[in-house]
Amino acid sequence: TKNSSFEKIIGFIGYIDKLKSVIRQNGLHDDSRAENTAEHSWHAALSAVLLAPYANFPVEIDKVSQMLLIHDLIEIEAGDTFVYNDEALTLQEQAEQEAAQVVFGQLPEDQGESLKALWEEFEARETPEAKFAKAIDRFLPLYSNIQNKGYSWRIHDVSQSQVRQICHIIEDGSTILWDLTEGMIDDAVEQGFLKP
Amino acid sequence: TKNSSFEKIIGFIGYIDKLKSVIRQNGLHDDSRAENTAEHSWHAALSAVLLAPYANFPVEIDKVSQMLLIHDLIEIEAGDTFVYNDEALTLQEQAEQEAAQVVFGQLPEDQGESLKALWEEFEARETPEAKFAKAIDRFLPLYSNIQNKGYSWRIHDVSQSQVRQICHIIEDGSTILWDLTEGMIDDAVEQGFLKP
Repeated sequence: TKNSSFEKIIGFIGYIDKLKSVIRQNGLHDDSRAENTAEHSWHAALSAVLLAPYANFPVEIDKVSQMLLIHDLIEIEAGDTFVYNDEALTLQEQAEQEAAQVVFGQLPEDQGESLKALWEEFEARETPEAKFAKAIDRFLPLYSNIQNKGYSWRIHDVSQSQVRQICHIIEDGSTILWDLTEGMIDDAVEQGFLKP
Repeated sequence: TKNSSFEKIIGFIGYIDKLKSVIRQNGLHDDSRAENTAEHSWHAALSAVLLAPYANFPVEIDKVSQMLLIHDLIEIEAGDTFVYNDEALTLQEQAEQEAAQVVFGQLPEDQGESLKALWEEFEARETPEAKFAKAIDRFLPLYSNIQNKGYSWRIHDVSQSQVRQICHIIEDGSTILWDLTEGMIDDAVEQGFLKP
């Protein structure tokens, strides 16, 4: 019934409050603390709207924005995994699929399926919207590492070549953003807070 | 030039990281800490998307979502003001107008004007999108007070009649959400964490 769909959504809105307590490896620009996934999702969704004119191709920006609002919801169940940890990433994939069932399964069926499909589209990185969303999602932690002099790079002893490899997909979404990224990586090495 | 517009946007994306350090009076659902405005903005934008079918009228939901992503950006300059503090709210209005100039003035002119207009539309609460966005913005802190047994109500000694007065605008955006809200307020009084 319409009423029980409403109640499910209200329950879900309460449930996702937990994303504010999922802590990322990444720090705030001012180096004051680690970032949580809810505020990261806000930053990503809004940054995408602002940078839409610089995508490599026309994108349906509202879809990108919604994709970024929900792209990390599964971390409520699966936790955050640092992108430079290969072993954890493989284990993570299955855990994330299971987490997606738990998370999106709480919504009314049509909404749950539609948001799960949007999350899968993001992960597959094949559509223009997903490529651009992933570019934003990879750029933001790099940008904060530049501002706070390698908050997460220091902790995890990350090297320049790892950063280039992980961030290279930015180019698929926005060439100009990738050009900026390369310059930032060069600067970080030169300033000594990213291992050559 | 296109290039300097790009640089302004990148600078702005760095600047708005500060919203993660603007602390609200409101607490997380699990009562663990106060909420910040960036994660609140994420919660509001996503909740609006989920609750769109329950608006009193058809709304352009992508506009509502974008409105909620930017609705509190001016707090980076003006700070958060508790909705139950009348005196502060009056002083706040002028400060917020000035803050809006500072915040949105950092963007390329067309983007800055368009986002500032969206923020003003939200504040004026006249369009369907603004009414629905404000309903969501008022519902969320009430919902968290219900979950954490009056985190911000206790601190500020807020009474039932104040909550009803502040939250009543929810009805203009969504009748079903207001019905739920009234029931929640009744429960809070009955359970003893909201003053009768």
